[in-house]
Amino acid sequence: MSREVTLAVDCMGGDHGPSVTVPAVMRFLEGNPDARCILVGLKEPLEAALAQWSSPAVGRASLRFASEVVAMDEAPAHAIKRKKDSSMRVAIDLVKEGSADAVVSAGNTGALMGMAHFVLRTLPGIDRPALVALMPTVAGHCYLLDLGASPDCSAEHLRQFAVMGSTLVACVENRPRPSVGLLNIGSEAIKGNAVVKQAAELLRDADLNFVGNVEGDGIFWSETDVIVSDGFVGNVVLKSVEGLARMFRHNLTAEFRRGPIAMLGALFAWPVLSKFRKRFDHRQYNGAMLIGLRGMVVKSHGSADAVSFGSALGRAATLVRTDVLTRISAGLAPRQEQLAQ
Amino acid sequence: MSREVTLAVDCMGGDHGPSVTVPAVMRFLEGNPDARCILVGLKEPLEAALAQWSSPAVGRASLRFASEVVAMDEAPAHAIKRKKDSSMRVAIDLVKEGSADAVVSAGNTGALMGMAHFVLRTLPGIDRPALVALMPTVAGHCYLLDLGASPDCSAEHLRQFAVMGSTLVACVENRPRPSVGLLNIGSEAIKGNAVVKQAAELLRDADLNFVGNVEGDGIFWSETDVIVSDGFVGNVVLKSVEGLARMFRHNLTAEFRRGPIAMLGALFAWPVLSKFRKRFDHRQYNGAMLIGLRGMVVKSHGSADAVSFGSALGRAATLVRTDVLTRISAGLAPRQEQLAQ
Repeated sequence: MSREVTLAVDCMGGDHGPSVTVPAVMRFLEGNPDARCILVGLKEPLEAALAQWSSPAVGRASLRFASEVVAMDEAPAHAIKRKKDSSMRVAIDLVKEGSADAVVSAGNTGALMGMAHFVLRTLPGIDRPALVALMPTVAGHCYLLDLGASPDCSAEHLRQFAVMGSTLVACVENRPRPSVGLLNIGSEAIKGNAVVKQAAELLRDADLNFVGNVEGDGIFWSETDVIVSDGFVGNVVLKSVEGLARMFRHNLTAEFRRGPIAMLGALFAWPVLSKFRKRFDHRQYNGAMLIGLRGMVVKSHGSADAVSFGSALGRAATLVRTDVLTRISAGLAPRQEQLAQ
Repeated sequence: MSREVTLAVDCMGGDHGPSVTVPAVMRFLEGNPDARCILVGLKEPLEAALAQWSSPAVGRASLRFASEVVAMDEAPAHAIKRKKDSSMRVAIDLVKEGSADAVVSAGNTGALMGMAHFVLRTLPGIDRPALVALMPTVAGHCYLLDLGASPDCSAEHLRQFAVMGSTLVACVENRPRPSVGLLNIGSEAIKGNAVVKQAAELLRDADLNFVGNVEGDGIFWSETDVIVSDGFVGNVVLKSVEGLARMFRHNLTAEFRRGPIAMLGALFAWPVLSKFRKRFDHRQYNGAMLIGLRGMVVKSHGSADAVSFGSALGRAATLVRTDVLTRISAGLAPRQEQLAQ
């Protein structure tokens, strides 16, 4: 657990750029004496943001300049082809060449996933990467994957996601055999579409703590550690629940602003509502992990503030320290032997 | 709009049976002088529940006895094969033989969908039925389909769902060209899995007000009238958002019970929270519609109370009065001609 960690940070990504990413990196370095960061970005804004820090932790930050930036709304294919000296690409290249253990970016999600896949390639035994995130649940949290990296999946891809998710949770939560469920439309084995039914068979045969099908509401209520789905379903579910949560906040705020009595109510209810809000604060859950590539990639929310971007950095460090990638490769090994027989 | 309506009501379905369904039917008949209901169920509980009513509306209620009941947790295949004299089956048969215009049941969803499909068969030009429900949105509500009737869908199936959904909303909301969106993982046309991309092409060519892709959060925020997905995705999304909403309620209640100050806060915030709750009360949205069969089927929530079951009855009556099935068939006709050329 005392392995030294070097993170390549795309400081230009996200809605706020270096004004958020640089302070987050510096606070992260102050709190993690075993860590180094390579800050990647345009020369001027990067130097300007760093000039404001005089902490000794600055000694563990190095700079790497890039000449361009991937726009938040840029087509991923365009960014992959054309933006070879972008802060995002340079940061990924640092992982590829072994100068950094993981890359962290709050930039364009599609471009980051595509570029990382293109540059880093998948681990042996893994066909496609998966995006994993924590979801708050009644009992704490669970890990949901894939959230959109691989929208078209075969049963075998879902099996690989299950192995990766299980290994990831075993590493970061230090739990030997996390429970793994398959997102489905019913709890009975006969339920689901053709791919999911086949995936369930593969998972029953796999060396996993497979608990069977989990329905949509089970994400929040079933206490399953890892929930597996293809990237299409995972992405639609993630955005649906985000959309609903945002609508709740919107409507609750609107109701509390409707006249003086409601506002008085809001005043009294404030401590509770604020606690409730914190419980679902996406900042503590920030940092989706792209796993299955030959290098760790952590995607921060584009609107992340420094606290939130700091969570993403912390997550990346944990993934490196617990050697997730090596353990995923090891977890896949038995099956490769089986196939070789 | 003055067409007489006859509903076949499975009075045994749901968590409460005749104690909820019979009062709901009677209040519905009192409020709808053009309607008749055939109450289907076991003789004794049905007569006992009806004996408590002396309203003149009783004259428009007739009884039809069944000897068995489909259990809420019964395997649909078993119910379809074995329960030929169940209240659910007899009610569906009444629609099949033309004695009733629509069937309403709060029973086992899988059994109801399977039995109705088996007995009523699909409309000409429709390969598979779809389950549609209203979802509350920031702007009001939208219609989402399919919610689980058809988990494995081709692009052509999704096109049929779009035509059915558009016609349904045109009828029940009296709006000529409702907007139709395709549930997807990005707003750009190139996004999605293979089936969804192909479906988008079919929808662009169809005679529909197709607005393109809608992402998960767009269900609540995009103001699209009809949102189309396969039954796997639709069901997982529906249950996910239900699960999240239940978790919000659970956690909010728990926070407000944490000590006297929080409880005082709850007291002051009560009017607002209660209004907020009503806004998302599933009772007013109760009544999912199974469309695409040669007869209307409305599924009430199993836990429905009399108010909620009454909403489902009202929805069924609206579907009959606005002649949705005839208009769906008419909406499909142009394509059939195209094919014949």
